[in-house]
Amino acid sequence: MKADFINPFLLSLLNVMSTMAQLELKPGKPKRKTDELARGDISGLIGMVGPKTRGSLSISLEKRLALEIMRRMLGEAPAHLNGEVTDMIGEITNMVAGGAKRMLGEKGYEFDMATPIVVAGPSHAITHKAEGMKIMMPFESEFGGATVEICFE
Amino acid sequence: MKADFINPFLLSLLNVMSTMAQLELKPGKPKRKTDELARGDISGLIGMVGPKTRGSLSISLEKRLALEIMRRMLGEAPAHLNGEVTDMIGEITNMVAGGAKRMLGEKGYEFDMATPIVVAGPSHAITHKAEGMKIMMPFESEFGGATVEICFE
Repeated sequence: MKADFINPFLLSLLNVMSTMAQLELKPGKPKRKTDELARGDISGLIGMVGPKTRGSLSISLEKRLALEIMRRMLGEAPAHLNGEVTDMIGEITNMVAGGAKRMLGEKGYEFDMATPIVVAGPSHAITHKAEGMKIMMPFESEFGGATVEICFE
Repeated sequence: MKADFINPFLLSLLNVMSTMAQLELKPGKPKRKTDELARGDISGLIGMVGPKTRGSLSISLEKRLALEIMRRMLGEAPAHLNGEVTDMIGEITNMVAGGAKRMLGEKGYEFDMATPIVVAGPSHAITHKAEGMKIMMPFESEFGGATVEICFE
């Protein structure tokens, strides 16, 4: 999988976080995922289907970071990962995939997005099941970490 | 969402469990999901995209049931929800969605499947984020419960 294909997802998350929550995430080095599992307390997941490819995207956040995003977007944060937070993570997942879809569409890579699913639970592990390469992109912030994973066949 | 649309997913799970693991699940009554969250210790998730619709499917299992399926398929069960179990749940998710896709295709409902994602973590909660109706189908067995959810726009 080329950087061409990875960067739109990376940039799209940075854009969404900066625009929606005035939050600057610091991207780490994208790496090919082997055995390592992405973990988070809340994750947004979305499937992608194109004429020549199919895959999945996940965005996993630590609870502390998810609540800080809520605080910045809405002025106050709930104490727990409640329904408002899952709504917000679902929206962010849609926006990140949508932003990457636009950037990739301009380069001739087309895909359609399924609807997002949000998973909440302390330190759950995410495994993408596709034959293709899996890329894990770590992000840091002063409020905790996030991990984006993409996987395409 | 009509029974026409729900039953293929229900039947497909029963088929897969019966064929792959000689396990008879007892289906409960499908219900429209409102606030209730599906919970499981391991879940397989997959996105679906058609020309006129898009949605998502999840299959959530209690740990005890997932390990019993492993025991029946492979002759022995691991002690934990390890990589072999996530592989198996990813496969089951693909097979259930694929079976429903075939049945629905015969009725003129077409969709393509994304690649599955497997989430593991004690009692995590699943929320499908789509505008359409969400249907939750509970299943019971002597080894614990499973929940299938489908959501289409």
